[in-house]
Amino acid sequence: MKKLINDPKAVVDESVEGFGLAHADLVTVFADPKYIVRKDAPVAGKVGLVSGGGSGHEPLHGGYVGVGMLDAAVPGAVFTSPTPDQILPATLAVNSGAGVVHIVKNYTGDVLNFETAAELAQAEGVEIRTVLVNDDVAVQDSLYTAGRRGVGGTVLVEKIAGAAAERGDNLDAVAAIGDRVNQNVRSMGVALSACTVPHAGVPSFELEENEIEIGIGIHGEPGRHKIPMENADGITDRLLDPVVSDLGLSSGDKVYRRAAQKLAEQGVTVARSLVGNYITSLEMQGCSITVLRLDDEMTTLWDAPVHTPALRWGV
Amino acid sequence: MKKLINDPKAVVDESVEGFGLAHADLVTVFADPKYIVRKDAPVAGKVGLVSGGGSGHEPLHGGYVGVGMLDAAVPGAVFTSPTPDQILPATLAVNSGAGVVHIVKNYTGDVLNFETAAELAQAEGVEIRTVLVNDDVAVQDSLYTAGRRGVGGTVLVEKIAGAAAERGDNLDAVAAIGDRVNQNVRSMGVALSACTVPHAGVPSFELEENEIEIGIGIHGEPGRHKIPMENADGITDRLLDPVVSDLGLSSGDKVYRRAAQKLAEQGVTVARSLVGNYITSLEMQGCSITVLRLDDEMTTLWDAPVHTPALRWGV
Repeated sequence: MKKLINDPKAVVDESVEGFGLAHADLVTVFADPKYIVRKDAPVAGKVGLVSGGGSGHEPLHGGYVGVGMLDAAVPGAVFTSPTPDQILPATLAVNSGAGVVHIVKNYTGDVLNFETAAELAQAEGVEIRTVLVNDDVAVQDSLYTAGRRGVGGTVLVEKIAGAAAERGDNLDAVAAIGDRVNQNVRSMGVALSACTVPHAGVPSFELEENEIEIGIGIHGEPGRHKIPMENADGITDRLLDPVVSDLGLSSGDKVYRRAAQKLAEQGVTVARSLVGNYITSLEMQGCSITVLRLDDEMTTLWDAPVHTPALRWGV
Repeated sequence: MKKLINDPKAVVDESVEGFGLAHADLVTVFADPKYIVRKDAPVAGKVGLVSGGGSGHEPLHGGYVGVGMLDAAVPGAVFTSPTPDQILPATLAVNSGAGVVHIVKNYTGDVLNFETAAELAQAEGVEIRTVLVNDDVAVQDSLYTAGRRGVGGTVLVEKIAGAAAERGDNLDAVAAIGDRVNQNVRSMGVALSACTVPHAGVPSFELEENEIEIGIGIHGEPGRHKIPMENADGITDRLLDPVVSDLGLSSGDKVYRRAAQKLAEQGVTVARSLVGNYITSLEMQGCSITVLRLDDEMTTLWDAPVHTPALRWGV
């Protein structure tokens, strides 16, 4: 396994340092404890948004720090929750007095550590709301989760809640729109290959030469089942069907093409789309499909200007 | 080798079709012959910009069609030059009467086919200028090239010449700024793994478990040498040193961190930066470094608004 890194122990430190150098116009990076803050934080009168999680899913979350999205991101070690002593200073750094929303993917460690940090911040007089993201329809419980996992829908929660905060919504309103996105978004993924955590040095799981895993987690946690390799249309159907069905929708590049065809057949209009690398899992090959049932307000907030390292328009 | 495709013979067709569906607000896709055109082309009074090349390097070139960049992109088969019968209609479709600039990466097939298409277009009364991109410092001649290959610098040529055309520069001026970018840009890449052309079904080249290739071409053509795997700093030095030295610069994520450190040590100011997937080679793992010596005009044109599937700001 070749990795373009120096010391496996230094990989997150160096990656975050490089990220700060590459995007010095947008973000400020703190090294110890490690967190990434929007350059002009705290923004007077604005609700602060903080997210975070294990590293290895880039551009999530650091890539979404900036105008119209996150105020701070807290990167843990690879596939490991960030600690309260990182989350707390990030929270304090972005609090203008209007309170802070924590956007937390539903993994046991993340939930616990954000909870602890929230209590500590509240003890210092900062009002906190938490939006829990659990959009993965693949499995109910998994290796690191009770309940559904938080995956691709997180990016949509961050964008839409971020736009609400940017336009001046108050703490409860920002948390409410974040919750509404989460309630209307579903995802499912597939892995074609495994990935290797740098300091582990061996793949996190095994896939045979002609085998893929449907419903894989973003840390390689087991999904629904391993099956023999199929073609792109077949795989797309296996991801999209559970998503659409779970979402209760009634009325696509390679994968996108098929997804668009199928949704059109079902009378679903694709109002907006993003195709690319928005939430990843180290070098794991695969993809995921995320569908959000939009309403007018969410659409307006989606279209609002955003300026972050990984997502930008209108600016 | 697992690939998320249907029929290997249909992979480019389906990919381009999906691309058109995903970005229907920006581009129009033609299927036979295959080319991608900016939605509002031809733009009255504006010089048209056409580029193209083998598929498998996405988002290059289709991802750069839109406001402030390319007017059309012509995708060949995987790693195969587009044909004159694709390039000609793309050229005619974007000609508003102000003429068309072809941006061509220096590979023998691309050069020949764009030349033929230019002659045919001229016979139909369209004025053509050609900007040849040859920024790869790795090797002088290669598997598909006489002279240096065109690689990452192509994106910068397309952005800056595209901005010049958008602001209303005439045909010669757009070609001239494109040439000036090419004269001031140098690149070099590394591969950690090989890639497999879908219809070939076997890897294009071989790398041992602990071996990498320095100076690799974007089709897996041989570079300078195969060496044992090194750490990220070492690899960065091996890519950056020849680029900086060839450019004659004398007086800034993982790789980016080291590159920024080294350039700062040499008194070079990094005025702008992009870190991400801008020119790829199927599933090949690796990276490349591209450095452009900026002047004030190029900086202004770089900062000008752009709205394409793969690059967007100011809009």
